Amino acid sequence: MTTNTIVDANTEADAAALLADFHTMSEFGATSGGGVDRQAASAADGQTRSWFSGWLADRGFRVEVDTIGNIFGLLELVPGAPYVLFGSHLDSQPLAGRYDGAYGVLAAGHAAHRAHRDLAASGITPRYNIAVVDWFNEEGSRFKPSMMGSAVFTGRLDLEVALATTDPRGTSVREALDAIGGRGGFVGPDVAGYAEIHVEQGRTLEDAGVPIGVVASTWCAYKYEIVVLGEQSHTGSTLMRDRRDALLGASKLVVAINELVREFDDEVLHASVGEFTVGPNSPVTIAREVRLLADLRARESSILASAFEILQQRMRAIESETGVRIEVLASSVWESGPFLETGLAITETAAEQLGLDSMRVLTLAGHDATNLKETVPVILIFVPSVDGVSHNEKEFTHDTDLVAGARVLTEVVKRLALGDFAG
Amino acid sequence: MTTNTIVDANTEADAAALLADFHTMSEFGATSGGGVDRQAASAADGQTRSWFSGWLADRGFRVEVDTIGNIFGLLELVPGAPYVLFGSHLDSQPLAGRYDGAYGVLAAGHAAHRAHRDLAASGITPRYNIAVVDWFNEEGSRFKPSMMGSAVFTGRLDLEVALATTDPRGTSVREALDAIGGRGGFVGPDVAGYAEIHVEQGRTLEDAGVPIGVVASTWCAYKYEIVVLGEQSHTGSTLMRDRRDALLGASKLVVAINELVREFDDEVLHASVGEFTVGPNSPVTIAREVRLLADLRARESSILASAFEILQQRMRAIESETGVRIEVLASSVWESGPFLETGLAITETAAEQLGLDSMRVLTLAGHDATNLKETVPVILIFVPSVDGVSHNEKEFTHDTDLVAGARVLTEVVKRLALGDFAG
Repeated sequence: MTTNTIVDANTEADAAALLADFHTMSEFGATSGGGVDRQAASAADGQTRSWFSGWLADRGFRVEVDTIGNIFGLLELVPGAPYVLFGSHLDSQPLAGRYDGAYGVLAAGHAAHRAHRDLAASGITPRYNIAVVDWFNEEGSRFKPSMMGSAVFTGRLDLEVALATTDPRGTSVREALDAIGGRGGFVGPDVAGYAEIHVEQGRTLEDAGVPIGVVASTWCAYKYEIVVLGEQSHTGSTLMRDRRDALLGASKLVVAINELVREFDDEVLHASVGEFTVGPNSPVTIAREVRLLADLRARESSILASAFEILQQRMRAIESETGVRIEVLASSVWESGPFLETGLAITETAAEQLGLDSMRVLTLAGHDATNLKETVPVILIFVPSVDGVSHNEKEFTHDTDLVAGARVLTEVVKRLALGDFAG
Repeated sequence: MTTNTIVDANTEADAAALLADFHTMSEFGATSGGGVDRQAASAADGQTRSWFSGWLADRGFRVEVDTIGNIFGLLELVPGAPYVLFGSHLDSQPLAGRYDGAYGVLAAGHAAHRAHRDLAASGITPRYNIAVVDWFNEEGSRFKPSMMGSAVFTGRLDLEVALATTDPRGTSVREALDAIGGRGGFVGPDVAGYAEIHVEQGRTLEDAGVPIGVVASTWCAYKYEIVVLGEQSHTGSTLMRDRRDALLGASKLVVAINELVREFDDEVLHASVGEFTVGPNSPVTIAREVRLLADLRARESSILASAFEILQQRMRAIESETGVRIEVLASSVWESGPFLETGLAITETAAEQLGLDSMRVLTLAGHDATNLKETVPVILIFVPSVDGVSHNEKEFTHDTDLVAGARVLTEVVKRLALGDFAG
């Protein structure tokens, strides 16, 4: 069976409902700069989760929450059958944009709701049940690691380890989730396939003037947790030659990490430090230690391996220049990998059927889809980001692109529910 | 009258009492590394203040607290006469040594107590009354600026501005002081002269093998509060050429500040950054801003002026290299200046009388004495710091040097009470 025989009731009303809901949702944790601040398990995250749970329940989804706070909206159309799953994350970085993650969750809700309606109107019983998900703590800004909910779901991360993780104030994930009533006992669902739609967070689609990105593969991401150890002393009275300044050593390391990109062709390596915490961080005191997180990404892991080799040489040089000690405490590795060709074709066909241009793109950012990809067939779809702005209140995607993306995702829901992506 | 005619009852018992009290006092806020953590108006600062207030009261001092939390212990020997004042500060940097400030307050208490006893035993009525002080918040690590209590006392800083100052968690000085019962209504005393004893926080005395430092002048200290402004974006997906990374710009600035010292002879300029705070400081996010405090010190202000000129050129270069904007938000200036020759001679004579070597030294660090110096005659005395270690749990001064310093200070109390330092 092809989806050509299914009613396609996508209307102006569907588009208006999506945009109105997106507007309502963007009020939770809204910032004065036009963005949102909804770090994982914050009050604003809790408000968004409650609102979305109500939205699902109002449309006939059975709402369940699992032990790490992932929210599922279940449409059981075929009793006992596995589910095809659609979603993203409602949490945000501090002072972030409205679209990152939240658009994908809302679009999944709308797409599942419309697909269900269209399938019912066509009198077709699908092969799989349909579910929507809000993955807990994708951003990892409050509780590390990022993509926590999907990592626990797929077994990459242990539940108890995740629940015991604390934020900088010492609050655990367990406590923070309980404070927003965000922890349940649901186990499941049994997943046959997963699709996620997300804003691109880059410029490829906008530069090409194409509304739908079909993500063909991910970049590798290597992250290193590093500590720079010096000796606490006085900014005034300690002789310059006696100082072992952790902040100076760490600053040289930030510069060295940035300069790694010069060792390769333009834009082949992305290398930055996002988190950088100084101890004791006091005005008249030379820093005792700095903890930082180096984030290196490239298409191929061989590039990252050789970048890290150069970085290690620089670390030894900085140690002898400044008298600090530099230790790599931990590393996390996401290897690159292609998405399944069947999945790419499903999205491309859906877009074509709707008269929308699509193109194959890469993802440089990690997504919950990256975790799911290790266990089930996965599709990742992008819509354009104006100027590629991301993790910033000024993040923006045009309404027409939001609407187009939800339409494509609706078609993808139908195809996956019918078994087009079955293994 | 000379002090040669006064009973000198300094005994082994006096030395033992000082060391025992110092040991007791060092238990408040004690850290596992052998230091203390007693930031201003913390619970541990409150405990130390209470203990010292009780110590004063037990020895017949009248204890008064002023509106910014400075604690005074008053011995009114000549009704209505002005006071000569002795003290330092009980608060500490985070994870600091036991001696910095606390030794000076305790030594002032012991010296005032002994001087009073010796004067009484000699049947001599002094010209001035005697007072001991714990200046609130000398360190400035929790509430800026440093030397807050003495700055309010001398009128350099407005009381209401000081009380409204908040720590990084948003707690005001007013709230923090009230939480430890640390704010009173005392006005005064009327001060005719001030002396402070402190650990050197440098190596000069230790290198010379001399137990008593007579501080002849202060270095200049120029402090600049600087903000580096970038654009918040994604550490993975944002193209390298699109990034305006505030952390990268700020790191280059830290390196540039350190490299300023190369423009001058060895140890002529001290230049460091102690405080460095990244926003939003999240693992997957390029920093939007960094706030930092540059601390430049030298013997002459002309050196600091030319260092700052070079630094401004480097700031412009860093702006064009990285696309950030660098703004100097505020600066604080402490000019260098000599201490009064009369005061130097008083300390030198006192040391000589006790058979202790002394030498003239500089102070690179600021002290409450630096504030007092602007309004009354001031004496500043140093005892050696082993290896010059400061603002560190490993800060150390030998017991014999603590005892010698307190003996010299006792003689200085007598001389000042008798009017040797009158203007």
